[in-house]
Amino acid sequence: MKKFTSVKDIDSVDQWVKKALEIKSDPYKNNALGRNKVLGLLFFNPSLRTRMSMQKAAYNLGMQVMVINLTKDSWQLEMEDGTVMNAGSQEHIREAAAVVSQYCDIIGLRTFPTLTDREADYADDILHKFIRFSSVPFISLESAILHPLQSYADAMTIAEHQQKPKPKVVLSWAPHPRALPQAVANSFVEWMQATEVELVVTHPTGFELAPEIIKGSTVCYDQQAAFEGADFVYAKNWSSYNDYGKIGKSLDHWMIDQAKMALTDQAKFMHCLPVRRNVVVADEVIDADYSLVIEQANNRTYAAQAVLTKMLSHEV
Amino acid sequence: MKKFTSVKDIDSVDQWVKKALEIKSDPYKNNALGRNKVLGLLFFNPSLRTRMSMQKAAYNLGMQVMVINLTKDSWQLEMEDGTVMNAGSQEHIREAAAVVSQYCDIIGLRTFPTLTDREADYADDILHKFIRFSSVPFISLESAILHPLQSYADAMTIAEHQQKPKPKVVLSWAPHPRALPQAVANSFVEWMQATEVELVVTHPTGFELAPEIIKGSTVCYDQQAAFEGADFVYAKNWSSYNDYGKIGKSLDHWMIDQAKMALTDQAKFMHCLPVRRNVVVADEVIDADYSLVIEQANNRTYAAQAVLTKMLSHEV
Amino acid sequence: MKKFTSVKDIDSVDQWVKKALEIKSDPYKNNALGRNKVLGLLFFNPSLRTRMSMQKAAYNLGMQVMVINLTKDSWQLEMEDGTVMNAGSQEHIREAAAVVSQYCDIIGLRTFPTLTDREADYADDILHKFIRFSSVPFISLESAILHPLQSYADAMTIAEHQQKPKPKVVLSWAPHPRALPQAVANSFVEWMQATEVELVVTHPTGFELAPEIIKGSTVCYDQQAAFEGADFVYAKNWSSYNDYGKIGKSLDHWMIDQAKMALTDQAKFMHCLPVRRNVVVADEVIDADYSLVIEQANNRTYAAQAVLTKMLSHEV
Repeated sequence: MKKFTSVKDIDSVDQWVKKALEIKSDPYKNNALGRNKVLGLLFFNPSLRTRMSMQKAAYNLGMQVMVINLTKDSWQLEMEDGTVMNAGSQEHIREAAAVVSQYCDIIGLRTFPTLTDREADYADDILHKFIRFSSVPFISLESAILHPLQSYADAMTIAEHQQKPKPKVVLSWAPHPRALPQAVANSFVEWMQATEVELVVTHPTGFELAPEIIKGSTVCYDQQAAFEGADFVYAKNWSSYNDYGKIGKSLDHWMIDQAKMALTDQAKFMHCLPVRRNVVVADEVIDADYSLVIEQANNRTYAAQAVLTKMLSHEV
Repeated sequence: MKKFTSVKDIDSVDQWVKKALEIKSDPYKNNALGRNKVLGLLFFNPSLRTRMSMQKAAYNLGMQVMVINLTKDSWQLEMEDGTVMNAGSQEHIREAAAVVSQYCDIIGLRTFPTLTDREADYADDILHKFIRFSSVPFISLESAILHPLQSYADAMTIAEHQQKPKPKVVLSWAPHPRALPQAVANSFVEWMQATEVELVVTHPTGFELAPEIIKGSTVCYDQQAAFEGADFVYAKNWSSYNDYGKIGKSLDHWMIDQAKMALTDQAKFMHCLPVRRNVVVADEVIDADYSLVIEQANNRTYAAQAVLTKMLSHEV
Repeated sequence: MKKFTSVKDIDSVDQWVKKALEIKSDPYKNNALGRNKVLGLLFFNPSLRTRMSMQKAAYNLGMQVMVINLTKDSWQLEMEDGTVMNAGSQEHIREAAAVVSQYCDIIGLRTFPTLTDREADYADDILHKFIRFSSVPFISLESAILHPLQSYADAMTIAEHQQKPKPKVVLSWAPHPRALPQAVANSFVEWMQATEVELVVTHPTGFELAPEIIKGSTVCYDQQAAFEGADFVYAKNWSSYNDYGKIGKSLDHWMIDQAKMALTDQAKFMHCLPVRRNVVVADEVIDADYSLVIEQANNRTYAAQAVLTKMLSHEV
């Protein structure tokens, strides 16, 4: 496996979920597999859970880890070819990716969208250039538009808790005071489309996901109707794709509370965290027994470990 | 052992000192005990020696370590329950502590006092909430009011150098240009109260420690009288508890110099470092053979290692 | 081996190059040598390749690594003796070096020149004081005036690619928009002087290296004449030593392009990275087959590993 950047890089969500659950049941089984191997984690944006879960996963496999926090100030990368680099950029991504590849056996990279330039964000330029100039296997730690490790952990969590062969999974937009990426929502839709669930996406008008993401999946503009009979409610804010990066107004009533959860078929509540309480979700929901948010975070480790295991074993 | 936050969490200072000295004499003996275990170190304030000594201790036991530097900018935590989190805070401490617990087997946390709100500081709120919502053993890396790992290392250092069954130990206030916490002084008093020494605390009027800390211990406002016959002089600045966070004026004469040390019974000099030379202590004292400051720093590793060993061994 | 700070600390460049190439051919052979040992890496300035290559080298030997990023803000060190430390400095280098030595088995330190005070820079004061007060082996990760690990990797790279017993090696000054240290150029000259090559240094008037560095080595002010018959062209900018820290004007024509490389005897192109493309070197050169820049970065790991191996083995 040369790269893990989206659901398109894996053969079967179901097989991968099975693999990760096996690892979860015996996480130290392969703790010699990563001997003498180094995982490099490069962050263009701060990270807590992604960093810690990747580190834990690597340590479970006996790997060592280098964390590199890149900011515009410390190390400004040139992305364009042919530029005369006499201004701010100190290093071209061609050298940066090639050099980092010398010191690491696997590289993870987190980038972030501008949320102002949709075309640039959806081209996922930094990610693709880094892969092109790197010489070792690559893991997306969240790109401008996708967050596959989160969705992989989410798919695991749903598999662990589903009571029906084909559960109804509702991805619900929720309010947030700041403009957030569409990455978690995009990836969640992609992974759910590739597994055996009934996916319904609900959001206010104007928050439609990109057409190449949503494809034929069901969209429902009535949140309460969407919740009816749901087995899983996945809450997440995202900023607008059409009016790119905008957050909308007067949408506080989209917060998920107990009254809405009561419409479901005793649905489990999910969120990728961090979450703003009583904005995205009411305390009564996130603190309920049916909240899976901490377990989702836990599963991040085993999703990451499954990807690392595939790469270290040179499996496809 | 579920938490190490103060002397109250241990059964016997003497037994613990003995344990740490055993570890010091053979530090790599248990270097498989921490296999597959991860220590998470969270710092709300920068740290040098606490971080390095904890890391070294963990490595001596074969653990891996994750260091997380938290600042208000990068990850602002909500501490209050029921808040509508639509302002600065991005994550509630309930999720933060629970999530970090997923990736670590033991967690260490450093917080810091406001030095403006005494009630809040002495409630040690962040520490207690973190423990409440965390699911793994917890180590205080210095809280708003206590620094037990420092005092543990100090107790070790005294035990190694004492010439008498019950040495006279003087904790002396010393000048400093900035307002510092009372944590080191508070913990030192607590640990000395729990072991076989004659403790005398000396400080200018207005620098009395909290009543619940000082209890019945001897306080002497005359520094020179306090030093007479001392076997150990522990220098430390702290800001006022009564006039909370204030540093006082015209107190430079409280600096510890050779003339004052000459009043003692060839006392050893101690300080937790970092120290401002020729403000807190004269060069002639800190550079003397009787200065134990570097050895105190060294003992931080073995104190930390003893705590980790207890936790990894599931000892009480 | 107690310190690695310049070519003067090693007995033979040729023997050391041979040693590093042996390690490169079997990098994990001694992966138990560093068991229970910790490498501390202290950076007064940000670092990417030095940090990562040192970490990789340490991991290849089974060592653990602590990275400490020091900035003026976080931890201001006092360098002068006898100072009354009542202003910005929080800790004296005497304690800092001694304390860090307690937690590490080997220490690496990166400092940086002022580029305004030549005398201070060339005294390399922080480096020498740190060594004086430290109690464990010391590695320079680049000082104010020397970068021996880079030159060691460069010497390896030349040895791997040389076609003649005594190749012609040209160190060429190249343009840069900011004032850079002389460290890489200084060390390269020193290492080349100590091995079997024909060294020619070419630079504009005013960019003469320090007399104690250049000694009797050939200096040629005509870049094109210097390139004739060259087997290796090593490009590097440095600011002026004589007009200390100045960068000069109208020197863009010193950029290295294909036309200049055509004057050589099919020379390999070298640069220590990071490099500003189309300022220091044209795309056509750095992207050519004869460019060794990525291999130089790779060799940083094995140069570092050779130094660590010597220190861990207590070899001279």
